[in-house]
Amino acid sequence: MNFKIRRAAKEDCKDISRMIMELAVYEKMPDQVKISHEGFTIIGYALYFYTYSTWKGRAVYVEDLYVMPEFRGNGIGTGLLSKAAEIGKKKQCVRLQLSVLNWNTPSRDFYAGKGAQDLTVTEGWHTIRFDGQNLDKLANEAPKD
Amino acid sequence: MNFKIRRAAKEDCKDISRMIMELAVYEKMPDQVKISHEGFTIIGYALYFYTYSTWKGRAVYVEDLYVMPEFRGNGIGTGLLSKAAEIGKKKQCVRLQLSVLNWNTPSRDFYAGKGAQDLTVTEGWHTIRFDGQNLDKLANEAPKD
Repeated sequence: MNFKIRRAAKEDCKDISRMIMELAVYEKMPDQVKISHEGFTIIGYALYFYTYSTWKGRAVYVEDLYVMPEFRGNGIGTGLLSKAAEIGKKKQCVRLQLSVLNWNTPSRDFYAGKGAQDLTVTEGWHTIRFDGQNLDKLANEAPKD
Repeated sequence: MNFKIRRAAKEDCKDISRMIMELAVYEKMPDQVKISHEGFTIIGYALYFYTYSTWKGRAVYVEDLYVMPEFRGNGIGTGLLSKAAEIGKKKQCVRLQLSVLNWNTPSRDFYAGKGAQDLTVTEGWHTIRFDGQNLDKLANEAPKD
């Protein structure tokens, strides 16, 4: 199958927002997304940004990696992920990280097959979140300058 | 106990790098840090940056939160964390996230007591990492433009 991995442009937003919703459906949390769009020509996307480890330096974090179901198994996911790795390395990143759901065996196997380490399993890292009223309450505890 | 929560300045680097090492020792991974420094006047730090959720928008991520052992139990950790929350909210963040080790019960209890959700427990999120040769290999698979 022929496909092209490229940087997203402003005019891709409609397709990307559709796939953001599709990814949320796949992750069984569609009620978490409040946006919608129709029509498509783009069949997958990766969204990444840079983070920083005080131990190792800059890292690239892949927030979303998605390929439409009917186009899976063609190396598009690998293309997107490896492109993020390549861009990260050009920016001196020593790590690429991402999060995956426990029940999502196809994705966990995909990452493991490419040599990734599951830090939750090997080192016991948990992800903690404050949001909504808990975040408001926490922010209100901040000492005044 | 009197303490002041403030933004870090360039001249704090020595103290902060000492505490980066202390935090790694506490997390039982001191061999992960290759830097060292001596002398201190600063007794804790929080390092944060911004991340982005395609479902919810901007978030603040607290990479490190550390208070020297002899100064714990004085509300300094809460001061640092709540300041990051306050700064995050000013920047329109709807979440504050961080990672904690499974065995680190004092910290897990501290976050839970402030209303945080453990996403690894409640939703099953795992943290995945590529680094070293696995990252190199992945980057080399990237399709050419």
